[in-house]
Amino acid sequence: MRVAPPHIEFVGGILQILDQTRLPDETIVVKLRSVPKVIEAIRALRVRGAPAIGIAGAYGMCIAAQAASGVSRNAADFFKVLDDAGAAVSAARPTAVNLTWAVEKLKRRAHERSDAGQGLVQVVASMEELAREIHAEDIATCRAIGDAGAALLSPGSVVLTHCNTGTLATGGYGTALGIVRSAWRAGLLANVLVGETRPLLQGARLTAWELGRDEIPHTLITDSMAAHFMRRGDVSAVLVGADRIAANGDFANKIGTYGLAVIASAHGVPFYVAAPHSTFDLSIASGDEIVIEQRDPSEVLEFGGVRASPIGTTASNPAFDVTPAPLVSAYVTESGVLRPPFAASIAAAFDSAKVAPA
Amino acid sequence: MRVAPPHIEFVGGILQILDQTRLPDETIVVKLRSVPKVIEAIRALRVRGAPAIGIAGAYGMCIAAQAASGVSRNAADFFKVLDDAGAAVSAARPTAVNLTWAVEKLKRRAHERSDAGQGLVQVVASMEELAREIHAEDIATCRAIGDAGAALLSPGSVVLTHCNTGTLATGGYGTALGIVRSAWRAGLLANVLVGETRPLLQGARLTAWELGRDEIPHTLITDSMAAHFMRRGDVSAVLVGADRIAANGDFANKIGTYGLAVIASAHGVPFYVAAPHSTFDLSIASGDEIVIEQRDPSEVLEFGGVRASPIGTTASNPAFDVTPAPLVSAYVTESGVLRPPFAASIAAAFDSAKVAPA
Repeated sequence: MRVAPPHIEFVGGILQILDQTRLPDETIVVKLRSVPKVIEAIRALRVRGAPAIGIAGAYGMCIAAQAASGVSRNAADFFKVLDDAGAAVSAARPTAVNLTWAVEKLKRRAHERSDAGQGLVQVVASMEELAREIHAEDIATCRAIGDAGAALLSPGSVVLTHCNTGTLATGGYGTALGIVRSAWRAGLLANVLVGETRPLLQGARLTAWELGRDEIPHTLITDSMAAHFMRRGDVSAVLVGADRIAANGDFANKIGTYGLAVIASAHGVPFYVAAPHSTFDLSIASGDEIVIEQRDPSEVLEFGGVRASPIGTTASNPAFDVTPAPLVSAYVTESGVLRPPFAASIAAAFDSAKVAPA
Repeated sequence: MRVAPPHIEFVGGILQILDQTRLPDETIVVKLRSVPKVIEAIRALRVRGAPAIGIAGAYGMCIAAQAASGVSRNAADFFKVLDDAGAAVSAARPTAVNLTWAVEKLKRRAHERSDAGQGLVQVVASMEELAREIHAEDIATCRAIGDAGAALLSPGSVVLTHCNTGTLATGGYGTALGIVRSAWRAGLLANVLVGETRPLLQGARLTAWELGRDEIPHTLITDSMAAHFMRRGDVSAVLVGADRIAANGDFANKIGTYGLAVIASAHGVPFYVAAPHSTFDLSIASGDEIVIEQRDPSEVLEFGGVRASPIGTTASNPAFDVTPAPLVSAYVTESGVLRPPFAASIAAAFDSAKVAPA
């Protein structure tokens, strides 16, 4: 097997990403040298997955800062450019909180260092350092999630997963797919049922690609087959990621997740959500406050440039859905497994995180 | 709009079908002059839908009878050929009962007429007459189903449907889509959410095509979006067809139907199954006895001929699933609406059918 290029890399002030819209057929690295290019790559899903777009957003802010530092007469000018860039990057995709989380973190760092009297060159260097830390921490976080989640599974498990929550969707290793990787290493995994994840087929294109490279056994299914396999008793657990988790434990994730949660609940199949702390948005009380991105109907009307429906057909394309907390068996985070009632367990996890050393 | 050619027609001993694998892009009529060609067309889904393959199977038996009558030295020879053809046609697709139902009906007619002393030419003519009757009756049956089902809907209804249950899937008018047509004519319908129905996209390709031609408002969605729209309260009822219904009310239908039933039940959305009497198989006690056709994994690995998954990926492709009776709100048949408990209501419907004039 050929070694694939790194899927996110920041080299000489340029964000290099493996274009996920071209996988699995082509491994094309695109070089992003400006904020508009970063935004285009996020919008077009060349880089996707809540943690991964957080990391891409962080590097995007470094590109903005580098450019601003060269043209700003003073710190005020610099921060004006940075604020505008941050607003634009945050707005690239509305549902995942990680993008805003990363942008705000980078802005805060810049202000702290500037307030401490550092010059713009040092501020920019410090922002890049933080972006690299976010990236590295996400990989460590995913490994912790993976190991914590694997501990929930029994030997011989067949897990069903949706969308792509792997290396490509994160700094590396993956969230729900991190659990798959850890479970496989621990000898607990018999098979992975990969939901293809219409409309953009991240399961078929990306998850199957990652699992194939890692030689982890897997079987592709259409999203509509999940209930059939659960009824046959073929599914030990459902593992999904998240794009935004509210304080009460409701969460948004790729369209189709909510249906899987309803079906898993009806069959008594555990439904685990793997997500880093950066995906929790305690500023919102419930999932009702999550904005659902509506994407272009053409994604539903066609695939890979092939139109499946008659000319003139209209389609709806909500990219995410919201699953209410009562359908979640547990959240698997880097600080451990959170159980219901989630309002309490989430609050406790973040209270203890605040007092823990950074 | 161009008038499409008839989707099933028997002309001069040749079965002409509109090739449904080519829709919506091309309206190609294929002429089937032999039993193997009819079987190939059924297997390859050039003609599909439980009632439609029943009709195609009936005409296929006429083709077999015509050919056999020319080469048989006696009735025993003729019936040997007819039995072999019937077995082959019945086996073309295992899940829908309508195929076997039609084949057996044609064979019974042939035996009756032969036993009554008719010669082979008359026997063959009588079989063709019966096949045309089955075809015409199915259209009348669908209209009765449509009108009975529309009576279940309130003004302003938004119905969600799966696969294609329309003109193409029947002799004409449709089962679940017959309800849509009757409801639209009665001014009860606000919109139809059309599930695309992976892997072969009968919803996107065929149902959208039919509704577009009839100018009935509809919106295409991926199968995975159904739960999202139900949670928002956007769905008044789910309308599906059936391929085989057991005596206890369990039924098999296109993969994804069972998941829709679970989701509809969780949201209190009525789940109606539209099917003619010919789809009921009272010889089986429950859905456990229904054979689920496993189709080629390539249907899942590809989308519209475009490979979506990496080379070497394996897929599972059950073409149908079984929905247990407790998830069905009602069966809509040509003799009226059957309500739970279905073991009793189905038995009653068929008892009264037996004593009613043919």
